[in-house]
Amino acid sequence: MEESFVPFRGIKNDVRGRMKCYKQDWTSGLSAGFSILAPTTYIFFASAIPVISFGEQLERDTDGVLTAVQTLASTALCGIIHSIIGGQPLLILGVAEPTVIMYTFMFNFAKSRPDLGSQLFLAWTGWVCVWTAILLFLLAILGACSIINRFTRLAGELFGLLIAMLFMQQAIKGLVNEFRIPERQNPKSIEFQPSWRFANGMFALVLSFGLLFTALRSRKARSWRYGSGSLRGFVADYGVPLMVLIWTAVSYIPAGSVPKGIPRRLFSPNPWFPGAYENWTVMKDMLKVPVLYIVGAFIPATMIAVLYYFDHSVASQLAQQKEFNLKKPPSFHYDLLLLGFLTILCGLIGIPPANGVIPQSPMHTKSLATLKHQLLRNRLVTTARQFIHKNASLGQVYERMQEAYQQMQTPLIYQEPSAQGLKELKESTIQMASNMENINAPVDETVFDVEKEIDDLLPFQVKEQRLSNLLQATMVGGCVAAMPLIKKIPTSVLWGYFAFMAIESLPGNQFWERILLLFTAPSRRYKVLEEYHATFVETVPFKTIAMFTIFQMAYLLVCFGITWVPIAGVLFPLMIMLLVPVRQYVLSKFFKGAHLQDLDAAEYEESPDVPFNLISQEGGELVRTASFADDGEILDGMITRSRGEMRHICSPKVTSSTATPSKEFKRTYSERVCSLKVYSPRVSQQRVEQSPGNLGRGPFSPKTNEAKPSNLGKGC
Amino acid sequence: MEESFVPFRGIKNDVRGRMKCYKQDWTSGLSAGFSILAPTTYIFFASAIPVISFGEQLERDTDGVLTAVQTLASTALCGIIHSIIGGQPLLILGVAEPTVIMYTFMFNFAKSRPDLGSQLFLAWTGWVCVWTAILLFLLAILGACSIINRFTRLAGELFGLLIAMLFMQQAIKGLVNEFRIPERQNPKSIEFQPSWRFANGMFALVLSFGLLFTALRSRKARSWRYGSGSLRGFVADYGVPLMVLIWTAVSYIPAGSVPKGIPRRLFSPNPWFPGAYENWTVMKDMLKVPVLYIVGAFIPATMIAVLYYFDHSVASQLAQQKEFNLKKPPSFHYDLLLLGFLTILCGLIGIPPANGVIPQSPMHTKSLATLKHQLLRNRLVTTARQFIHKNASLGQVYERMQEAYQQMQTPLIYQEPSAQGLKELKESTIQMASNMENINAPVDETVFDVEKEIDDLLPFQVKEQRLSNLLQATMVGGCVAAMPLIKKIPTSVLWGYFAFMAIESLPGNQFWERILLLFTAPSRRYKVLEEYHATFVETVPFKTIAMFTIFQMAYLLVCFGITWVPIAGVLFPLMIMLLVPVRQYVLSKFFKGAHLQDLDAAEYEESPDVPFNLISQEGGELVRTASFADDGEILDGMITRSRGEMRHICSPKVTSSTATPSKEFKRTYSERVCSLKVYSPRVSQQRVEQSPGNLGRGPFSPKTNEAKPSNLGKGC
Repeated sequence: MEESFVPFRGIKNDVRGRMKCYKQDWTSGLSAGFSILAPTTYIFFASAIPVISFGEQLERDTDGVLTAVQTLASTALCGIIHSIIGGQPLLILGVAEPTVIMYTFMFNFAKSRPDLGSQLFLAWTGWVCVWTAILLFLLAILGACSIINRFTRLAGELFGLLIAMLFMQQAIKGLVNEFRIPERQNPKSIEFQPSWRFANGMFALVLSFGLLFTALRSRKARSWRYGSGSLRGFVADYGVPLMVLIWTAVSYIPAGSVPKGIPRRLFSPNPWFPGAYENWTVMKDMLKVPVLYIVGAFIPATMIAVLYYFDHSVASQLAQQKEFNLKKPPSFHYDLLLLGFLTILCGLIGIPPANGVIPQSPMHTKSLATLKHQLLRNRLVTTARQFIHKNASLGQVYERMQEAYQQMQTPLIYQEPSAQGLKELKESTIQMASNMENINAPVDETVFDVEKEIDDLLPFQVKEQRLSNLLQATMVGGCVAAMPLIKKIPTSVLWGYFAFMAIESLPGNQFWERILLLFTAPSRRYKVLEEYHATFVETVPFKTIAMFTIFQMAYLLVCFGITWVPIAGVLFPLMIMLLVPVRQYVLSKFFKGAHLQDLDAAEYEESPDVPFNLISQEGGELVRTASFADDGEILDGMITRSRGEMRHICSPKVTSSTATPSKEFKRTYSERVCSLKVYSPRVSQQRVEQSPGNLGRGPFSPKTNEAKPSNLGKGC
Repeated sequence: MEESFVPFRGIKNDVRGRMKCYKQDWTSGLSAGFSILAPTTYIFFASAIPVISFGEQLERDTDGVLTAVQTLASTALCGIIHSIIGGQPLLILGVAEPTVIMYTFMFNFAKSRPDLGSQLFLAWTGWVCVWTAILLFLLAILGACSIINRFTRLAGELFGLLIAMLFMQQAIKGLVNEFRIPERQNPKSIEFQPSWRFANGMFALVLSFGLLFTALRSRKARSWRYGSGSLRGFVADYGVPLMVLIWTAVSYIPAGSVPKGIPRRLFSPNPWFPGAYENWTVMKDMLKVPVLYIVGAFIPATMIAVLYYFDHSVASQLAQQKEFNLKKPPSFHYDLLLLGFLTILCGLIGIPPANGVIPQSPMHTKSLATLKHQLLRNRLVTTARQFIHKNASLGQVYERMQEAYQQMQTPLIYQEPSAQGLKELKESTIQMASNMENINAPVDETVFDVEKEIDDLLPFQVKEQRLSNLLQATMVGGCVAAMPLIKKIPTSVLWGYFAFMAIESLPGNQFWERILLLFTAPSRRYKVLEEYHATFVETVPFKTIAMFTIFQMAYLLVCFGITWVPIAGVLFPLMIMLLVPVRQYVLSKFFKGAHLQDLDAAEYEESPDVPFNLISQEGGELVRTASFADDGEILDGMITRSRGEMRHICSPKVTSSTATPSKEFKRTYSERVCSLKVYSPRVSQQRVEQSPGNLGRGPFSPKTNEAKPSNLGKGC
């Protein structure tokens, strides 16, 4: 996306891009069938549970004017509208913590003014929303989102980690409060006696840690060794909601021997009572607000607009990271415009507006990648099996698989037709075919491990569609109706879920991985290389990584500290926006361009033309403890990608009928034949690191290579 | 050990064998320096905690006549004597659950008899001990232990798992009781109100699961990625006692807000009170026991003798499994004789006798293996580094290392001098030397990963000495004095520790691993091969493994059921003894000899001369899903060991100055150059399974090979 501030151009581009794939957004979603329910439920819980909890918080802080019913309604309404007419359907909308803080502040202000009072509070927030929307319109029209590319990994990942910290803080706060008497409750009740309070706290510890551990475990079910494949898949897909159910059930076990309020459960109004909808008709009160306050509403509106501009765009950006290999275009400007309309709508019916949320949005994309992988895999496995049973040769099987793969691809009418993934499969097939001893012999499935082969072949792809978002938003809406059921969930399970969300958002965050690297014993740093394939570990000296990470950590702590400041705390996104000039003008003074490029690639920086020997000399520090590999045969091809990632794509394995089938060695072998594949989407100059390099001293002495991205797995 | 029933021959042989290494038992222990404290503390906790808990149980069941002071005193006394003049110093003695059950039964009997009463109870048990000792003397003298070899893996591992189940049962029972009002306490106390009882139970859950998780984690600290090597080592060595301390400290956190009895803590008498030693002078009461009861004491004595004979021998056997590669001889008969004396001693001073315990004894051996490994490693690393700094060539370095290794070996005056481990190191060195491109060039430590090299070279060895046993027994004795401190440990931490012990005893138990295999999805069974290197997975058809394991599980459940029978339950070891004829005469009817040999090698069975093709035909079933390996180069040599184990010994890796040092591939490579080494200590006929075998159908078509055990890693 080029930086352009011509009015309406951004919106026009967005609409044009998304229109082309609008139909496909629906057909693709529908074609997934029931399997779309896995990411849907996953995101539904991730979306609904915090919203319910924020609703509870609002209820306490606004004397019950706003409740979980309103936050759920807003999330559902905005989510449904966005999923249907929004630009980027991967973006998840929800009422977020900053909104809650702003509304609390505004409520306290309104209550303190006799000419406004808590009665006109919602009408006044209606005006705030109107102003906010106007500001958002302006930002969208003037192309403010085109600077989104200046938000580098530095800012995005810092923000992601900050959100994770806030979620974790909420979890800990919640747990601590389980030992205390809640506000606005009768402290004389039996369940608030010291003994029962202590019992409640301990029970809460058991429930929340129970949920946290089992939920984390269940997400990894696919790699379990026990149970059938479909069971493992089911647990991995639906484990988290399942665990919420199970631990809610567990919380009822001691029901006979404890008073009614233990463990504490959600405290929300019954939406079926007639009074619950009283405040939904604020529009008619809006003109009763004194003019002074209508004008004054501009002040909180500015803060909210800045907040939403940032939150919405960053959430959208994190849902569309380059690693996700999205095929469809982004839509920052149009989505911001739509957010303006949604804000007005929410303001007029007296509910707090929703905006793009983290970590739910990237979680959504990741869960859709899992779905896409499964769909592709099932299709290809079926195809392969079918032809193997027909005694086809390996060459034929791969041909059919390629055809099936092609059919599964998004019809790329709005992009150049040569999609990366397709190319990869083709090349792998060719590679493999040329290495086959007898490509025309019938394939024996006992020899040819179809599922494993295909798992290795498939690139990272995302099922980009609108259905999962629409469904999850509808389900959030369903929560309003199901409130009497939802109230059965113990609050402690919620705290466990908050901790789970915080932890779930960490993997893949390079900032987090660099923090871990700091605490890794020097002799074990090579293990990081085994897992993350992060380029910077090899190319940037450890000291530089450490300095960069410590700076980022200090900045993170400052941001975290700011969230504790009573009102100004809402504006912590400003601190993160400040990172853009810091990154561009300050950091570049302290760090070498090449290092910054590897740690935090920015589009406005040209790939620097530094002599690579220099880098490898310094990069050698970390790998000095690394031991010798043996020969170039193993290290077939290893090219690093400039954006701090390295993709691990395996070429098909060679099958020899004289080979000995030892599972013991299979893994070894498959690692050996894997070539680390690469492509650098922006930086034309690639650093090809191929053996043999000199040992010990400067083990990575890469040659510069202008070659096009291609699979270099020669040994495969 | 041959089966011989000539009186005294067993004892004579034992004494002769152990006398030869008696001095070395002490010098070896002392030479380890402070590092001996790691296994000592580990075993001290494993020994003391159950004994304290059994003491508490006795206190409840004998109206306070016997307490934790007595059980600790017995464990310490017997442990100290055994560690000094006992035969096998790896054997850990302690008061075990069956003893507690027998004493409870005897107490109830004595109390019900007016002419005996609880006053003469200890005097009467003195007589029981005398009878027991006489029976044990007879068994020892007549060579009863020489049939110990008939207890195959089947019986030993079943017994081990049964003990683990009993420990786990104790942990669960204990936790459930935390929610109840304990016996012999005032139910009107404030801490037994329903609310506080519930709070106590929940707190207990937190403490025990906390201890269990952190203790299990800390044992794996050596493979952590974070912290310095010495910190990781410290946590791994002392993590369990540390966690008991930490969770005890945690239990005091809410001290201000809860009544004194929450969480519940150990309830034991203060040994510093004068009354605590009243019952230590039972000898003078022994003649007051009516003659009828003196004679009748023979009946419980028989049961105890059978129990001790079995428990003591099996605990000793499990501490000396063949996998441990012990260098010093066993001492079953002499130890049983000594146990007789210890039993009389305990009987005369009115404390329950101790006997060999599971799982502490095998835990002791395993912890000493870790110690030996570290000592050897440190020594060799120091030697290697020293010579590397002197610019020695790789050949020279290995020569020095070999010398150092030789010095660290037990002087084997009582064995043929060619120790296995030494041979291995020699051969590896030769292998490596012949593969070295330039063996005379100076070694560069950046290239030559000394620590990794040495880790790969070292065989499994155990630091066999008497010091750790003596020290741990002395520390258990110290517990009596430290009782006021020990009483601060919450009982819930104890339950967590019981669960920890149960789980710690599982790895390495093939029966357990086979149970897991049953629940492993067929497509993932190959993973078992990657981890356990268990021969049977490859050579025995899955159906046979399943049948064998299900039979064993059913038998285990029957044994477990029997422990629930009020009095006869003590005799569950009889059920396990019954396994000897079952294995010998019944199982051999249902299973093929070769399969039984792999699943459960017995010495009385000759290695069967079945055609190996037959086996491989059937064995193919499991590996059919296994995919192809590539070439014989990877599968350098792979020989299975007849006793269901396969040792993984790496030959030194080839260093080439032109190789590319990629840690990523290092693991792969080291796996590749590893040759699976083998020796079959008893069965002369080995099955050499070397590539290339035919794929799919019968992938393991081994050749018979009469070759002497040797390192066949030709590619190394």
